[in-house]
Amino acid sequence: MKKGHQVTMKEIAKKLGVSVSTVSRALKDSPELHPDTKKRITEMAKSMNYQYNLLAQSLRISKSKVLGVIVPELTSHFFSSNISGIQDTAYKRGYNIMICQSNESFEQEKANLKTLVSSQVDGLLISLSRETKSYEHLQELYDREIPFIMFDRVTEEIPVSKVTVDDAHGAYLAVKHLLNQGCKKIAYFSGPTDLYISKKRKEGYLEALAEFGIPEKDSKVYVTDLTTEMNRKVTLDMLKEKELPDAIFAMIDPLAIDIMIALKDSGIKIPEQIALAGFTNNPTSAVVEPSLTTISQPGYEMGQLAANHLLDQLDDIVSDEPQSFVLLTTLIERKSSLKNQNLS
Amino acid sequence: MKKGHQVTMKEIAKKLGVSVSTVSRALKDSPELHPDTKKRITEMAKSMNYQYNLLAQSLRISKSKVLGVIVPELTSHFFSSNISGIQDTAYKRGYNIMICQSNESFEQEKANLKTLVSSQVDGLLISLSRETKSYEHLQELYDREIPFIMFDRVTEEIPVSKVTVDDAHGAYLAVKHLLNQGCKKIAYFSGPTDLYISKKRKEGYLEALAEFGIPEKDSKVYVTDLTTEMNRKVTLDMLKEKELPDAIFAMIDPLAIDIMIALKDSGIKIPEQIALAGFTNNPTSAVVEPSLTTISQPGYEMGQLAANHLLDQLDDIVSDEPQSFVLLTTLIERKSSLKNQNLS
Repeated sequence: MKKGHQVTMKEIAKKLGVSVSTVSRALKDSPELHPDTKKRITEMAKSMNYQYNLLAQSLRISKSKVLGVIVPELTSHFFSSNISGIQDTAYKRGYNIMICQSNESFEQEKANLKTLVSSQVDGLLISLSRETKSYEHLQELYDREIPFIMFDRVTEEIPVSKVTVDDAHGAYLAVKHLLNQGCKKIAYFSGPTDLYISKKRKEGYLEALAEFGIPEKDSKVYVTDLTTEMNRKVTLDMLKEKELPDAIFAMIDPLAIDIMIALKDSGIKIPEQIALAGFTNNPTSAVVEPSLTTISQPGYEMGQLAANHLLDQLDDIVSDEPQSFVLLTTLIERKSSLKNQNLS
Repeated sequence: MKKGHQVTMKEIAKKLGVSVSTVSRALKDSPELHPDTKKRITEMAKSMNYQYNLLAQSLRISKSKVLGVIVPELTSHFFSSNISGIQDTAYKRGYNIMICQSNESFEQEKANLKTLVSSQVDGLLISLSRETKSYEHLQELYDREIPFIMFDRVTEEIPVSKVTVDDAHGAYLAVKHLLNQGCKKIAYFSGPTDLYISKKRKEGYLEALAEFGIPEKDSKVYVTDLTTEMNRKVTLDMLKEKELPDAIFAMIDPLAIDIMIALKDSGIKIPEQIALAGFTNNPTSAVVEPSLTTISQPGYEMGQLAANHLLDQLDDIVSDEPQSFVLLTTLIERKSSLKNQNLS
């Protein structure tokens, strides 16, 4: 992939005050457009020295009928659910998928992108690695007009469609539930603070506290790198403090389960002494003792929606105009937080 | 991929009583071989009308530096561990990997193979779907001399290298452990009986019983399709029988956990009334209550070994002669089976 600025359809669209898909249709000589509009657009394209991207064009025409998918990791239940949703949808529509994982590495994400583009996939679905903080590789993909959309781990820097879940609202639901159980001192166990979901879920945590009249200065945040060792250490260190929380909201379920094990090992009763809630709804969370209250993220549905939207773009069923889809999360009440009732 | 018989290097090797890699070296004009040997081989190749596979050749020379991987499913912890092992190894050796999942479907496995071969991967690592009972697609790959090896779900029909775990021995270890705990009536909960691992693990189960003087007629096998619903139903039906087992060996951990939940719901004490052991060592198995005794399968190591062996073949570090690697499994003792001791 060589660099250097190329005039894009987006720039032509902006100059003329029309949509990118109108430009795209004009350059494809679509019969849907008025001849005058087509003429205006093709003349502008010519005057701006627009190079119709022949590679992207031939990709679209040749139709490998393959989508490329890049995810940070495959061992996560959430991402493997995304992939199942993508694959089932793609397969129904006559496409196969090839998957690469970045292993949370920026370098590997770039290598994955190169590999999939060389394989002439018709389009890509991308979820960013934890390390990805610059976006030239995606900008280049965008400039080359290779269709792609982003899901779950996205960036606002690139104007393509995005599918995410409402992280802040999910966290708000979990913390509000703990407050409704009578908990008053709720701690938030967070992953690395520069992670998008760490921030978003903290927002929801603070919002629920505020709603119950608890100011931010009375909030309590513990940060871990999300390794089992550090999750355990942070929990045991917390237990040495003078004043303990009466509830913990953990950013993700695997962290919640590490906290649960450390609390149980220290003789703390859950939920009586400390109530606990997570976020993700991994299968494990239903079978631990006590079963874990959590927020369900619709991973499979997210994959379905992302794949359907990309394929709709490829098939010109919808325009290439970027759209943002936000899926709702739901609270799943289980034993780890229910102080007032008995639930099986 | 078109069909039709092509003379293979293997057939030339057989005619001359030499190895496939000797034929391969002769046709590549390797300086390691004696000129007479080279002459003998190239003349035979000519007389048999051997078509040196230019596509495979160019693939080997062009070196996309990408390996293709096909697994039955990505949601399984075992296969995602395999992939991590493959990816880490490939990455260290300068290769990227593209992954396809067959979703346990024979048709999708064939489509995956076509997709990856079209993408000009340098080689493939394949684990078969549950449905795969004929092997023409693999035979064709073999005839086209595209390098590949198989792992975990393999077939003896195709003469390529294979990496597997010792399923029968692992099952033997689990059942022997239950017998050593004083259990005398051990039931085997099996998946569909035509699955390779159902058979192999049953062999190990029967072998352990035999060693303790229990004949096959006193064994007890329950079969499920491995869905959570049926796992639960089979367990609850078993509990209605007059005589209950004092231990259960479950073919895989997810089945063991479904059994555990059904037993607990029915008020059965584990391990006091019924001891329980699984096979896989999923992360969940350590955190359920009681923690699950299981057999550890070295999934990551299997991926490493498979990738290293394939890359060694591609780099001519080892010959293309098929080899079989069998990795050992180990017993992990946890609370669900320990009747005589206390373990944390």
